[in-house]
Parts: sequence; C-alpha cells; structure tokens
Amino acid sequence: MSFADRLIAATDEFGPLCVGLDPHAGRIPDLFGGDTPEGLEAWGLAMIEAVKGRAGVIKPQSAFYERHGWQGMRALATILEAAREAGLTVLMDAKRGDIGSTAEGYVSAFLASDAPFPCDALTVNPYMGLDTLEPHVRAAEEHAKGVIVLARTSNPGSADFQSRSLEGAPLFERVVEALAPMIERLKGESGWSGLMLVTGATGPDEARRLRALAPDALFLVPGYGAQGASAADALSGFVPRGGRLAGGVVSASRSVSFPPEAQQARSLADWRQAIIAATNAAQTDLMAAATKLT
Amino acid sequence: MSFADRLIAATDEFGPLCVGLDPHAGRIPDLFGGDTPEGLEAWGLAMIEAVKGRAGVIKPQSAFYERHGWQGMRALATILEAAREAGLTVLMDAKRGDIGSTAEGYVSAFLASDAPFPCDALTVNPYMGLDTLEPHVRAAEEHAKGVIVLARTSNPGSADFQSRSLEGAPLFERVVEALAPMIERLKGESGWSGLMLVTGATGPDEARRLRALAPDALFLVPGYGAQGASAADALSGFVPRGGRLAGGVVSASRSVSFPPEAQQARSLADWRQAIIAATNAAQTDLMAAATKLT
Repeated sequence: MSFADRLIAATDEFGPLCVGLDPHAGRIPDLFGGDTPEGLEAWGLAMIEAVKGRAGVIKPQSAFYERHGWQGMRALATILEAAREAGLTVLMDAKRGDIGSTAEGYVSAFLASDAPFPCDALTVNPYMGLDTLEPHVRAAEEHAKGVIVLARTSNPGSADFQSRSLEGAPLFERVVEALAPMIERLKGESGWSGLMLVTGATGPDEARRLRALAPDALFLVPGYGAQGASAADALSGFVPRGGRLAGGVVSASRSVSFPPEAQQARSLADWRQAIIAATNAAQTDLMAAATKLT
Repeated sequence: MSFADRLIAATDEFGPLCVGLDPHAGRIPDLFGGDTPEGLEAWGLAMIEAVKGRAGVIKPQSAFYERHGWQGMRALATILEAAREAGLTVLMDAKRGDIGSTAEGYVSAFLASDAPFPCDALTVNPYMGLDTLEPHVRAAEEHAKGVIVLARTSNPGSADFQSRSLEGAPLFERVVEALAPMIERLKGESGWSGLMLVTGATGPDEARRLRALAPDALFLVPGYGAQGASAADALSGFVPRGGRLAGGVVSASRSVSFPPEAQQARSLADWRQAIIAATNAAQTDLMAAATKLT
C-alpha cells in the first residue's frame, strides 16, 4: 500500500493527530532516567506503547537524538524499530536537503528498504531545488514511502523569505507549484499524495490557498496544542471527505508528550495514564472539529 | 581566537583547500575494510593523518556517515575528535535548519563546547528564516565557532528558487543581504567573519557580486576539482590580501579523497602517497591561481 494510503487509513482509524517525539533538554522524566541516551530510549519506547491504538502517526525530531551523539542515534533507531513493529506510521522530522549524490546518502539512512533509521516519510528542505528532492521522491516511489517538503513554516522567520514575493507570488507558493509533478508521482489509490507539505499556515485563508494550489497533497500541520493553534485553525487546509475533514495530520508535541500531569507523575502507571489522557484529549478535540466543520 | 581568524590563519599557512571527507557508497578502499562503519572510521583517521600539515581545513559530509546508522555516527565522532587533536579546522557539512527550540538541539549536537560531534562550524539552510539561524549564531559567538549559510549552491536546481527574483533581486542575494547583522556579529580581528556563505557561483561575475554584497564573509566554495570548476573560477569571489587572493576556502572531495591512484593502491603506504600527492597538487594549483590573479 502506498504511503499516502497508509497515512490516510491511519487518520481514518484514529484521527488526524500526529504525536511528536521531541525529547527537549530536561523534559524526559526521571522515571525514565532523565536526559540521557538511555532515558530517551526508555521514554520513547514507553511513548509508543502508550499511544499505540490511540494515534496512528508519530513524528520524532532528529535534533533531540543527535544532541546525545551516536548513543542518541542508537536510541532513535531502537525507537523507530519499535514504532514499526507497533504498526505506527513514522514521519521522521530531520529536514535534510543536499545535492543529488549526497541526498542519496540521506535516502540510504532513512528511506531505503534497509535504512538504519527506518521511517515512512522524511521531512526535506526545498531551498536547494528540485534536483535535491528527486532522490527522495524516487526512493518514495520504489519503497512506498513519503517525502514531506517544507512549504510554509509557522515560525516568525518564515516571513523573512518564504512569504516574500518571488516573481509575483510568495516563495512558498512557488515551491508548492514547482512540486506539482512530484505530487502527482506519489499519488495513492485514495487520491491523496505522499508528497506531503509542511503547512504552518498563519490563518484559514492561507491554508485554503495552499489547499487550492495542491489539492491532492497531504499536509503536515505543525503548531497545534502548546504552540497555540486551535483544532479549527489546524484543520483549515483540510477538506470534507466521508462526513469529516481530511487531508493530512496535525502535529502536537509538548501538549501530548509532556503534559504537566505526566511530568509530575510519581509512577510509570501514572505517567502512562497522563499520556493516554493527553493523546485521547487531542484526538477528541481534533475529531470534534473535523466533524463539526464539514 | 575567533573561528574566522582560525580559518584564515589555516589558509594563510596551508592554502585555501578544504578537503571533503565524503565516503560515498562503494568508495572506501578495501584496504580499510570497504563500505562499513569500521571502514569509514579507519579511512577517515588515515585521511586526517595524510592531510595534516598539508591542508588546514576538512569538511565531512554527515549524510555519508548517517547512512551507516548509529555506528556510522560513532565513526564520525571518532574522526572529528582526531581532527581536533590534529589541529585541523572542521567544517561540518550537515545543512541543518529548524525552528529555534529544535535548532538548539542541533547546536548541542555540533557547536556546543561539549558537543558529541565537535566541529568548528556547521552548514545551515536559511529557508525557514533568520530566527532559525539565531541559535547557531549565538552559539558561535559564545564558543568561537562558525556558521555556514547556504546562499548560492552549484547544483542545477539552484535555478528553481535561489536565482529567481525575490522582490527585485535573486533570492540568494536577499538571503545574503538579510545576513548582514549576523556577519557583523561574527567578525574576527582579521576583519573576516565566521558567518560564512556557501557560494557555488556559476561564474566570475556572480561571485564578485556576492563578494560585493558581503565583503567580510568568508566563502565556502564547492565545485572545484571533480565537479568541474577551475582554480581561477573557484577563487572569483576572493580578494587581494597580502599579495594573494583570500576570502575563504575551496572545497574538493573526490579529486583529493578518492583519486584513481589511491583507489588502485595495493598498500596503505601507496594509498597515503596518492592522497598526499593529490592534496599537494590541489593546494599548489589553488595557490598558483591565488598568487597569479592578484
């Protein structure tokens, strides 16, 4: 099954939540060993056990594993293997991007069938141009994977270049336009494409504009939860399908992975309870908005 | 001493060559164990021993270590430690880039004083905006490191976005303009700035234009050697200082790390001889052009 079809099936079954696994410095509870490679690994494996059956998609952020050196990368590999065994769809957030022969190296690391950091899709940066994305798209075609291209990010600095006018339209719109053939190539039977776009839209109008530009691309929407966007905001670029809004995943990290109740938990059972509650709450909030807004 | 002053001192002493350590699939000679993490490590350590005293700057490409998983990253860490002990200036080519809190993770991984992947400077991607570069620049100020921003890359796809007009000037020129305050912040006593720019200029005019836009930024120039640019082309953005052209480093990978004579070597001594010859030849070629062109 294509990546796009797997992702949309996962959101149909569990809802649009994508759980970020972002072990920021100082956030791993002492219950797991704190801010160490061993702590990351134990926490990540427990997160997978807790969200399994409640969310279909996770997104680990590579930076927080790299900061622990090769031991952190070993923890990441272990977590990725466990996620695969748990049947979770894994969006690897590493924002790679380089010339063709180097991009092949990243493909081998993340998207190849025997990749040491196995995932279902990888985030990539478009600044260097389409030829730097091509090896990822080709690997995605061959191995039923996805490629997630940064289009519009949600940080203030996205105004510096992304939203400025490149020959008459915002740079991020030019990026999306240029991706059209790649979006077509990664289309699944569902009609959705595994060439995903990161769309941290600043408002509903912009999100709808992105959807109009790329009607078939699945969106990865950051900024929901602790970063401030409401469920309705986050779903602005989604479209009605079968009685509710569909079109991608909405990512939440801190609010689901590190809710206050989990940070204060005195036992693993209490911690797990808090993670399950936060996951269910986010999924319910998003599903309510997805149903109400159609 | 600031990173900029260290880099310019290294090029004054040895010449402008930066040796790329890019272990592409299938290129590590069997003498070292071939395409395995152990092969990468043995090869990288031997490369450092061979170029030490002949080149002052090296540039490992992260992708080729990541493709070997955490074991490849362990090899990278070992190579980086050896480079530091050998007194080489290390430009880590990883092209990272993410929102502030995530960028802090990459800073911890590469630029912090206790970074597990220690280097002197890190390549970063500007697409997401200045706030995503800020943590790197701040770390560079604190720890006397450098930040190398992708401006104009040398691949064909750089025409897709970088060279298109953003509000009246090519996107890559807008990026360079926006970096002016950061360039100022990382200036050393030499007058050069450790906010470096990747400038894979397509011709002398463009390189001189980039130099005019950023007179103090050190350049990292890719494309010399196997990728086709001549020494004179590569030095187009450099300026006369003390009787020769200065202003950054010129990177060569395949032609210096994998010359045919080294690939065919039957013994480690022959391999080492070939690497030394290739390093000296590149350095001599660049120095001749740098002296002749002033």
